[in-house]
Amino acid sequence: MEFTAQQIADILNGTVEGNPDVKVNNFSKIEEGTPHSLTFLANPKYEHYIYHTEAGVVLVNQDFIPSTPLKNTLVRVPNAYAALAALLEIAEKLKKKKEGIDAAAFIHPSAHIGEACYIGTLACIAENARIGRNCKIYPHAYVGENVVIGDNCILYPHVTIYEGSVIGNNCILHAGCVIGSDGFGFAPEGEQYKKIPQLGNVILEDDVEIGANTTVDRAVMGATLIHRGVKIDNLVQIAHNVEVGEHTVMAAQAGISGSVKIGKHCRFGGQSGLAGHISIGDSAAIGAQAGILGNIEKNRTVLGSPAIDARLYLRSSVVFGRLPEMYRKLEGLEREVEQLKKELNK
Amino acid sequence: MEFTAQQIADILNGTVEGNPDVKVNNFSKIEEGTPHSLTFLANPKYEHYIYHTEAGVVLVNQDFIPSTPLKNTLVRVPNAYAALAALLEIAEKLKKKKEGIDAAAFIHPSAHIGEACYIGTLACIAENARIGRNCKIYPHAYVGENVVIGDNCILYPHVTIYEGSVIGNNCILHAGCVIGSDGFGFAPEGEQYKKIPQLGNVILEDDVEIGANTTVDRAVMGATLIHRGVKIDNLVQIAHNVEVGEHTVMAAQAGISGSVKIGKHCRFGGQSGLAGHISIGDSAAIGAQAGILGNIEKNRTVLGSPAIDARLYLRSSVVFGRLPEMYRKLEGLEREVEQLKKELNK
Amino acid sequence: MEFTAQQIADILNGTVEGNPDVKVNNFSKIEEGTPHSLTFLANPKYEHYIYHTEAGVVLVNQDFIPSTPLKNTLVRVPNAYAALAALLEIAEKLKKKKEGIDAAAFIHPSAHIGEACYIGTLACIAENARIGRNCKIYPHAYVGENVVIGDNCILYPHVTIYEGSVIGNNCILHAGCVIGSDGFGFAPEGEQYKKIPQLGNVILEDDVEIGANTTVDRAVMGATLIHRGVKIDNLVQIAHNVEVGEHTVMAAQAGISGSVKIGKHCRFGGQSGLAGHISIGDSAAIGAQAGILGNIEKNRTVLGSPAIDARLYLRSSVVFGRLPEMYRKLEGLEREVEQLKKELNK
Repeated sequence: MEFTAQQIADILNGTVEGNPDVKVNNFSKIEEGTPHSLTFLANPKYEHYIYHTEAGVVLVNQDFIPSTPLKNTLVRVPNAYAALAALLEIAEKLKKKKEGIDAAAFIHPSAHIGEACYIGTLACIAENARIGRNCKIYPHAYVGENVVIGDNCILYPHVTIYEGSVIGNNCILHAGCVIGSDGFGFAPEGEQYKKIPQLGNVILEDDVEIGANTTVDRAVMGATLIHRGVKIDNLVQIAHNVEVGEHTVMAAQAGISGSVKIGKHCRFGGQSGLAGHISIGDSAAIGAQAGILGNIEKNRTVLGSPAIDARLYLRSSVVFGRLPEMYRKLEGLEREVEQLKKELNK
Repeated sequence: MEFTAQQIADILNGTVEGNPDVKVNNFSKIEEGTPHSLTFLANPKYEHYIYHTEAGVVLVNQDFIPSTPLKNTLVRVPNAYAALAALLEIAEKLKKKKEGIDAAAFIHPSAHIGEACYIGTLACIAENARIGRNCKIYPHAYVGENVVIGDNCILYPHVTIYEGSVIGNNCILHAGCVIGSDGFGFAPEGEQYKKIPQLGNVILEDDVEIGANTTVDRAVMGATLIHRGVKIDNLVQIAHNVEVGEHTVMAAQAGISGSVKIGKHCRFGGQSGLAGHISIGDSAAIGAQAGILGNIEKNRTVLGSPAIDARLYLRSSVVFGRLPEMYRKLEGLEREVEQLKKELNK
Repeated sequence: MEFTAQQIADILNGTVEGNPDVKVNNFSKIEEGTPHSLTFLANPKYEHYIYHTEAGVVLVNQDFIPSTPLKNTLVRVPNAYAALAALLEIAEKLKKKKEGIDAAAFIHPSAHIGEACYIGTLACIAENARIGRNCKIYPHAYVGENVVIGDNCILYPHVTIYEGSVIGNNCILHAGCVIGSDGFGFAPEGEQYKKIPQLGNVILEDDVEIGANTTVDRAVMGATLIHRGVKIDNLVQIAHNVEVGEHTVMAAQAGISGSVKIGKHCRFGGQSGLAGHISIGDSAAIGAQAGILGNIEKNRTVLGSPAIDARLYLRSSVVFGRLPEMYRKLEGLEREVEQLKKELNK
C-alpha cells in the first residue's frame, strides 16, 4: 500500500497543503511519525506534537491553524478522525484475506459450513454446528454442538462457544472469550451448595463484538440475550439471564450480575459492577468503577459505589478529602457553642 | 423430553390446578413462555409476569394467590425454586452424554485414563498425568505433567492445568480457566525485578467448581489450597499460597492476593478485592467491590473500600451525597458562631 | 534433589545450628513442614509457626533469636528470603527441561524456529512467524502470522499472539493471555457504532512477564508498547496505544485505558483502573482499587476513586464511617446556634 498526499486528499475529498507528491505507506501515532507515515491530529490535546512529528502527511481538521509553519504536508478534511477511520478501513480491506478450510481443521461430519469460510488449523467444529457464509474461524477455536453462527463472523483463536449458543451475522469474537459457560447458580443444601443445572443458552444478535477473554454465561432457562450492535470490551463478565439492549457499549472488566436488564444505547465504564435482578434504562451512562445496587432510569449518568448522580459524586468526592478537617472543625464548633451557651447563661 | 402437568406434579409431590393433560417440552423464563414451556414463579418481584405469560405450566409456591384468574395450568409445590432445580436436574440427566476417547485426542503413553471417560478432539494429556473414572475432558483442554484428577470431573474447552496440580472428585472447570500458573513473585534486584521460582502447586479438593477464565496460581512452595465444596465464578483471581475454606462462594471478578487464608462458608461479592497475608473468619460476607486491607472476624458482613461494617457503610454512603451541603453548612455555622462571639463580647 | 543442611549452608554462605547431616528433598510453607522439607522464616508475622513446624531445616535471618529452644536445624543467612529465592532457582534449574519439536506441533513451512526450542503438541505457528533460540512453546499456544519472538521465551498453553506482534528476549507469557487483540475503537454513526480498524501492533521488550488470561490490545496505529522488565499479573487489561515504562509492575485485575503513558518503576495495586489519555510519572504508586482520572506526578502514592494522596485517603476513610454521626451533630449545632441567636436578640 502506497499513496501520495494528493491521492489521499482525493479519496477523502480533502485539500492538500504542501507537497502533493509525498508518498506514505503506513500509519503512525503523531509522536512517532516517519517520512513515509501518515498520521492525524483531531484532539487539540495532542497539537504540540505536530510541530515535531516526522510524519510525511498529517490529516487535520479544515479549520486547524498551526501556530508556526509546518514542514509536513497537510491534508485538510472536515473531520480528521473520521477521515482516518475511513483510510484505516481501506488499508484493512487491502490486507490479504485468510481463506479455505485447513487440512488440520477438525469438523464433525454432521456440521454444516457455509460458502467462502476460512477454518484454521486445529479449529474444532462439533456435531450439528451450523456456520454461515464467509466466516473466519481461527486456529484453536471451539464451536460446540448445535451452535448456530450467521454470516461474516470472525472467531479468533481459543474462542469457546458452548453447545446450543446462537451467534448472529457480522459478529466478532476475540481470542479466549467464552460464550455459554454455566451460570453461577447454586442452591444451599444443608452445609453445602447444590448446582442448579443451567439449561438455557446465549444468543448474540447481529453486529455484536465480544472482547478477549470476556465471559458470557448461558441462562438457567431461556436465553442470555445480547442485542444487535452491542460492543463489549475485554475481560467483561455477563452473568446468566442478562439482557443487553441494542448498541450498548461496555468497557473492559465491567461485571453484570444475573438477570439484569439493560436498555439500548447505554455506556458502561471500565470495572463498573451491577447487582443482580435490576434494570438500566435506555441511554444511561454508568461511570467507571461504579457499583449499581438498584434500577437506573433512562438517560441518567451515575458514578460511585453505591452509585449516585455523577456530578454530585464528583462534588462530594472533592469534599471527601476534607473530611478530617471537617471533623476537627465540627468538634471545635461544638466546644465554642458550649462555651457560648455557658457565657450566655452566666 | 415431554411431560404432562400431572406427571410433573407427581414427580414433585405437587398438586395441579388447571388442565392436568397439558404437555410441556422445555423451560422458559416467565416473561418468555410458550404454550409448550414450563416456567416458575418464586420471587414475588416477578409476579406481574404470571398474568401475561404464555407458558403452559407454571410452578408456584403452595400459598400463591393470584390476583386475577389465570389461563395457565399451575403446579403448586412447597418451594417453587427448589422444585424447578429438581426438574432441571432431571432434564440435565436425560441429555445425551459424551463418551469415549476421540481418535484425535493427544494422550501421552505414560498417562493413565480411568474407566468411562470422554476425552475430546485435540485434548492434550501430558506425561504421567492420572485421570480418574467417568471424567469428561472437552476439546482443547490441557492437562499438564503429573497432574492428578479424581473421578467424575468435567474440564471444558481450553482449560489449562499446569504440571503437578491435584484436582479432587466431582470438580467442574469451565472454559479457559487456568490452574497452577506461576504466582506473581519477584524480588527487587537493583533497578530490576528478579523472578522467584514458583515450585509449589494447586490442590482443589472434591466438589469444587471454577468459573470460565478464572486463574488460580500455584504456590511458591507448598500448595494453593481450595477446600471441598468451594464455588468460584468467572474471571476471579486466586493468588499464590491462598487457602479457601470449605463451601465458600466467590462471585465474578473477585481478587484474592497472596497468602490470604479464608474460612468456611464465606461469601464474596463480585469485584471484591483482598490485600495479601490476611485472614477471613468463617461465614464472613464480603460485599461486592469491597476492598479488604486487614483481617475480618467470623460472621461479619463488610462493605466499602477500605471495608467497614456493611450497614454503617450504607448509612455513611447516604450522607456522602450530602457532603457539599454539609461543607457549606459548616462554613455557615463558623461564621455565625464568630458573629455570636463578637456580639457577646460587645 | 536432596541436600543436607550443611550443603545448603555451604551454597548460601550460611551457618548451621543443629544437625548438619539432616536431609531435605522439598520445600514447604512454615505451617506445613515435614521432616524432609526445608522452609524459611523472614516475615516476623509468621514467627509463631517456627515453634511448631515439622520442617527439617529452617532458613532464618542471622539475627533471629528464638524465644524457646527449637528442635529443627536452622541455617542462618544474612537474608532468609533472598536465600530461599536462590535455592528455589537452583531447584528450578535441576528440573527436567522440555525439548524438541513435537510431531503434532503445527508449524507453517514459512515460519522460522531457532535452535534448541521446545514446541509442544498442538502448538500452532503461523505463516512467516520467527521464533528465536531456546524458546518453549507449550501445547495449544498460538503464534500468529509475522509474529517475531526473541530468545529464551516461554509461551504456556492457550496463549494467543495475534499477527504482527513483537516479543523480546526472556519473556514469559502465562496460559490464556492474549497479545494483540483489537483495541476497543468505535465511532458513533447515527444510532450505531462503526468499528475503527486496529492496524497497529503490540511490542513487548525484553524480560517482560504477562500473567494468565491477561489481555494486551494492539494499537490503532503504531504500537502498544511494554518496555523492558515490566511484570504484569493475571487478568489485567492493557488497552490500545498504552505505553508502560521499564520495570513497572501491575497486580492482578488492574485495567489501563487507551493511550495512557506510564513511567518507569511504577507499582499498580490489584483492581486499580485508569481513565484514557493520561500520564503516570516514574515511580508512582497506584493503590489497589484506585480510580485514576487525571495525570499523576512522579513518586506520588495515591488511593481511592477518584484517587487522592494515599495517606489523606486513609485518614478521610476513617472519618467516612462517622458521617451519620457528623450529620446529626451538624444538625444539632444548627439548632443550638439558632437558639443562641434568639436568646441573644431577646
